[in-house]
Amino acid sequence: MNKNLIAFVSFFFIVAAFGQTKELTLEDGVMQQYRAFRPDQVLGFHWIPETNKFVYFEELGRKLMIANPNDTKGTELVSLSDLNEVLKADFRSFWGMEWKDASTFILTDGSKYYAYNFTTKKGNLLATTPDGAANSTLNNAKDLVAFTEENNLYFIDKNNIKVAVTAETNSGIVSGQTYARSEFGISGGIFWSPKSSFIAFYQKDETEVADYPLLDITETPGKLMSIKYPMIGQKSEKPRVGIYNLATKETLFITPKGAVDAYLTNLAWSPDEKYVLIAEVNREQNNMSMNLYDAKLGTFIRTLINEKNERWVEPEKPAFFPSKTSNNFVWSSEKDGFQNLYYYSIEGKLIKQLTSNKFVIKSILGSNTKGTEIYFEATGPNAMNTLAYKVDLKGKQSLLTKTDGTHTVALSSDGNYFFDEYSNHSTQSKSLLVDSKLKETVLVESTNKYKDYKMGTSEIKTIKAADGTTDLVTRLIKPSNFDAAKKYPVLVYVYGGPHAQLITNSYLDGASLWMYWMAEQGYLIFTVDNRGSENRGFAFESIIHGRLGVHEIDDQIKGVDYLKSLPYVDGNRLAVHGWSFGGFMTTSLMLRKPGTFTTGVAGGPVTDWKYYEAMYGERYMDMPAENQKGFDEANTLNYVKNLEGKLLLIHGTVDDVVVMQHNFALVKKFIEAEKQMDFFPYPMHKHNVGGKDRVHLMKKVLDYVIDNNK
Amino acid sequence: MNKNLIAFVSFFFIVAAFGQTKELTLEDGVMQQYRAFRPDQVLGFHWIPETNKFVYFEELGRKLMIANPNDTKGTELVSLSDLNEVLKADFRSFWGMEWKDASTFILTDGSKYYAYNFTTKKGNLLATTPDGAANSTLNNAKDLVAFTEENNLYFIDKNNIKVAVTAETNSGIVSGQTYARSEFGISGGIFWSPKSSFIAFYQKDETEVADYPLLDITETPGKLMSIKYPMIGQKSEKPRVGIYNLATKETLFITPKGAVDAYLTNLAWSPDEKYVLIAEVNREQNNMSMNLYDAKLGTFIRTLINEKNERWVEPEKPAFFPSKTSNNFVWSSEKDGFQNLYYYSIEGKLIKQLTSNKFVIKSILGSNTKGTEIYFEATGPNAMNTLAYKVDLKGKQSLLTKTDGTHTVALSSDGNYFFDEYSNHSTQSKSLLVDSKLKETVLVESTNKYKDYKMGTSEIKTIKAADGTTDLVTRLIKPSNFDAAKKYPVLVYVYGGPHAQLITNSYLDGASLWMYWMAEQGYLIFTVDNRGSENRGFAFESIIHGRLGVHEIDDQIKGVDYLKSLPYVDGNRLAVHGWSFGGFMTTSLMLRKPGTFTTGVAGGPVTDWKYYEAMYGERYMDMPAENQKGFDEANTLNYVKNLEGKLLLIHGTVDDVVVMQHNFALVKKFIEAEKQMDFFPYPMHKHNVGGKDRVHLMKKVLDYVIDNNK
Repeated sequence: MNKNLIAFVSFFFIVAAFGQTKELTLEDGVMQQYRAFRPDQVLGFHWIPETNKFVYFEELGRKLMIANPNDTKGTELVSLSDLNEVLKADFRSFWGMEWKDASTFILTDGSKYYAYNFTTKKGNLLATTPDGAANSTLNNAKDLVAFTEENNLYFIDKNNIKVAVTAETNSGIVSGQTYARSEFGISGGIFWSPKSSFIAFYQKDETEVADYPLLDITETPGKLMSIKYPMIGQKSEKPRVGIYNLATKETLFITPKGAVDAYLTNLAWSPDEKYVLIAEVNREQNNMSMNLYDAKLGTFIRTLINEKNERWVEPEKPAFFPSKTSNNFVWSSEKDGFQNLYYYSIEGKLIKQLTSNKFVIKSILGSNTKGTEIYFEATGPNAMNTLAYKVDLKGKQSLLTKTDGTHTVALSSDGNYFFDEYSNHSTQSKSLLVDSKLKETVLVESTNKYKDYKMGTSEIKTIKAADGTTDLVTRLIKPSNFDAAKKYPVLVYVYGGPHAQLITNSYLDGASLWMYWMAEQGYLIFTVDNRGSENRGFAFESIIHGRLGVHEIDDQIKGVDYLKSLPYVDGNRLAVHGWSFGGFMTTSLMLRKPGTFTTGVAGGPVTDWKYYEAMYGERYMDMPAENQKGFDEANTLNYVKNLEGKLLLIHGTVDDVVVMQHNFALVKKFIEAEKQMDFFPYPMHKHNVGGKDRVHLMKKVLDYVIDNNK
Repeated sequence: MNKNLIAFVSFFFIVAAFGQTKELTLEDGVMQQYRAFRPDQVLGFHWIPETNKFVYFEELGRKLMIANPNDTKGTELVSLSDLNEVLKADFRSFWGMEWKDASTFILTDGSKYYAYNFTTKKGNLLATTPDGAANSTLNNAKDLVAFTEENNLYFIDKNNIKVAVTAETNSGIVSGQTYARSEFGISGGIFWSPKSSFIAFYQKDETEVADYPLLDITETPGKLMSIKYPMIGQKSEKPRVGIYNLATKETLFITPKGAVDAYLTNLAWSPDEKYVLIAEVNREQNNMSMNLYDAKLGTFIRTLINEKNERWVEPEKPAFFPSKTSNNFVWSSEKDGFQNLYYYSIEGKLIKQLTSNKFVIKSILGSNTKGTEIYFEATGPNAMNTLAYKVDLKGKQSLLTKTDGTHTVALSSDGNYFFDEYSNHSTQSKSLLVDSKLKETVLVESTNKYKDYKMGTSEIKTIKAADGTTDLVTRLIKPSNFDAAKKYPVLVYVYGGPHAQLITNSYLDGASLWMYWMAEQGYLIFTVDNRGSENRGFAFESIIHGRLGVHEIDDQIKGVDYLKSLPYVDGNRLAVHGWSFGGFMTTSLMLRKPGTFTTGVAGGPVTDWKYYEAMYGERYMDMPAENQKGFDEANTLNYVKNLEGKLLLIHGTVDDVVVMQHNFALVKKFIEAEKQMDFFPYPMHKHNVGGKDRVHLMKKVLDYVIDNNK
């Protein structure tokens, strides 16, 4: 992999000096990257099932166009006014549409679900969910809607009648919602069986999980909004999987085979609806069993796959069934060091390891109708890319995307075509239609939306990690009037934790536009994706296990060494900023490497891992009882006396991810140590400061850097 | 009054340049004013009842001395070791002692109460209160202890048995504790009758008062600590006065004659125990009735006094009975514009208006044994003083203290002597014994504890208020090396609200020592006691009614005008700082007089009066429904767009007086208005940042001023 990365050294924006007269504002930098500067793209692309036709939007979703690979310029399928007349509805756009079959789509206003057949030009009201319904989920046939209300699960039957699946009066027992704080790839709690005979669902008993109090200051007086928050090492959620049988109206429950607070993850249905597959992970997260259950009886049949790892096992991709007529499935695992695909029988027999790549598979896109080819997204050898590949059941793999970059791909239902939108270092956005022979038809190629603006350059290089051998990718953004004879101050932007990669082969290289604004203020903006970040494989990411902060900091310091080696960097004027894990990194860098940075701004930081939640936290840090030394070592509170320079801590007051206790505990410790530092709250903001207030936030951050990094 | 104030113009410290070499540190300024720089004083002075003897402490309370007016140099009364041997106790000092009779005192470790007779040299355990007991209150005979546990009231009887007075299982019904948030002079909820036949007590039903959530971050996870907090205009406490009869063991309850949430204040017993007097104030606080109740029956007898005022009526001094053998009483009222004394019969007949001063009586000190002379503290004509006076029942008044300044006076039990400790502009502390002919014996005269330090000067002047006629007192502190040819920046320190006076005729003129530290940094520190502050009479204080901030700001701006008139003031470098009401003033000045100050630091500010508590808030602002215009006018949130310069807001995270919602609501508004400002929290601190952390606080405040007032 390292050799491939070298190829990426020294990219530069090719910019024409001519015409670049407009200046970015900070508001542009924070708010407009995906608005005013959004590239020309195909909006609302959907393949129509059972055909090779597709639809897309014009007029920001108010116009629905139909086209096909041979004639990509579409014609209007149905106008909003005609649709509304047929449905007796008041839709203002087609956003949120789902396709039911070759001629029917579903549209919802959030409460009412309508079906519209564009061949017959008829439509009907399918289902009405009550006010307060959440997590609404259509079945595969798109004729039933399951949803939650408060802590219970319901669905709307074919007569538009609401049916209760659960009726728990104890509000601590929650059905049909996401679980385990959406770790393990979990994003919801409702799983219709393929033919709609069953609804599987997550049920979590959080009655013993501690309440964490948040304050709603918009009420008079301020009102308590408690959340259930299982901190590391404390009592956690107890899961079950319910299987509701629509024929018998009975529910069976599957409980963990291990401890009551083990994790039930990656739920999948076999195509024939006979089985439910669940990856059970022990609370220690070092032992995973892919278990097979009988859907009608709720009984355990067998363990299909077992995987252990002393660092962690983290299944994130449910079993994938390539064919609707076979129970053979594809399992994703990083047991050989990279996320690879394995083809299994339902008996648990490994039929074939499909891929043996030394790079990371990111997601499975689908399969052809016969189920003989699996399509997936992967980095390819250069971890900054997101490419599309296919592999057949014999393990023959081929690359589908010709150009390096970050691709978003949508397969047609037969797998004969795919839609591909991509960007890379030099392309803001290009949308293609690609056939089975990889012939590309350009749908839209965006102009460069920044062409009239003074924009700096971005330079991608690799440096060696603190281990002396691993290559790390770095990104250095310079101002448009960069002068190598000058000495520039630098802002290091850091995240550094797992599940994230800051530098990608995409337009602006994964950078935020505000970094270009900051560069124009006479700054260099630097980032390095240290060991522990994602898309480089298990060894690279898992080295952080038990000692969060240690290797990440060492690698960041290698980044600093690199910066100091540059003749145009003022090594005495380095600042650092990051959010969340990046806030932890910023604080850790300020306190454990004092004197390196004059200025740090840490947003929503984890300060002491014991205040973080169990699912993410115990994976990386284990339990305090097993690893007190690691907790102490990582605890920023233990280093407050080291502070040199200026440190600003920021927190959203109703942050329910990294609760504000992290920051207040650290501030309290600084005060006790007689250390001056700064803090700023964003009232009623959660873990991210969103909307217009984000401009205020970034001005706060960057003003602080500019004022203090001297 | 104004003419008298003129006399105070242009005081200066008389300082000897010689020897002033030491420099104050900020830590000195914040922590040592009443520690290392504490003047020599008589500690622990107590008159012994029924005698003219007195006791005092040596060795910081570890040694108990007895003396008398003829021989003021005392002898040791009893040693701690002898006392502990007799009592089988482990006292480390005599602090907290109370006198029972001419030869017996009571000492408690907080749980056990002991009596010690220094004549017989015998002692005994009087009472043991349980762990968790609070508000412990001895009866007059000092042989019974009433106390609260949780929400109930108990007492320890003569057999050292705990007796329950109340047994409420509803924790929202609270007996024996302070009430009405300690407004109306209320400081406790237990009132033993003179002969201990009854216990009167406050009971508040706060079940309908809203909970305000505070967060204890010292627990993992952070734990909810809700407080009952009745915000302005919302459901408030419903009071009763219970009268427990020790003979019958029954409790009768007195409820308000008006609305259920009217205030029952200023509870007093008649000497013969037949009556309880209660000043009932309506919720609007513009109508007060002094009502007489039968103690045995709990029945209302008659209204003795009624007082109305369209601004407010604020009784703060319970009926005072000069004689133990008469039910005639002294009532304090500011109905004629100043706090004056009125002598009433128990029938409600005004016998005599005792005083008709145009200055403020601060407190009643006591009376002579016959009840013919009432001793009291008052400002005298110069409102900066606190002097002692007496008045007889014919209204003949005479001044007891010869020297201007701030006196603290303790009367002997027969009223023939008094102990007097005072300070003034030029005297750090002097302790006197004064006889009935006002002959003074000096007990201790302190040396100047600052004499070795570089200390600036304090200048007291008067300026005209914004009304053009009222004199306001100002204080200007200058550095020791003041040079009138230079231009100095100024920090204005402000409070500005009722119930407070910042400038007094005492050593340092009421200033905090940190102001002298700040002066040495090349600053002038200025304060003006604007209209609305205390000790200047009702008209002066009550002009703020309904429009908090308006006149106070106007007067502060007159202070600024005065500063700008001084040749040595740099009018472009003014900063302002205040806490609580002073935080409200600071924020209001920054937002409603933008451009006046470059820098403001507001601690624990009220930002929107609707978030403040009912008792104090409704007195000054009425209800939002009556005075929405006033609330809008006073609401700092409505002026955020005006901000110029730098503003730092500070709050204790568990402030239960001005809840942090004030500050967060204001910060939120600043963010919405795209205004940058600063905020700093003091985790787990309440309305005042106390202890060592106060040094951090003042460094935070003063660094901010120094860094930004440029």
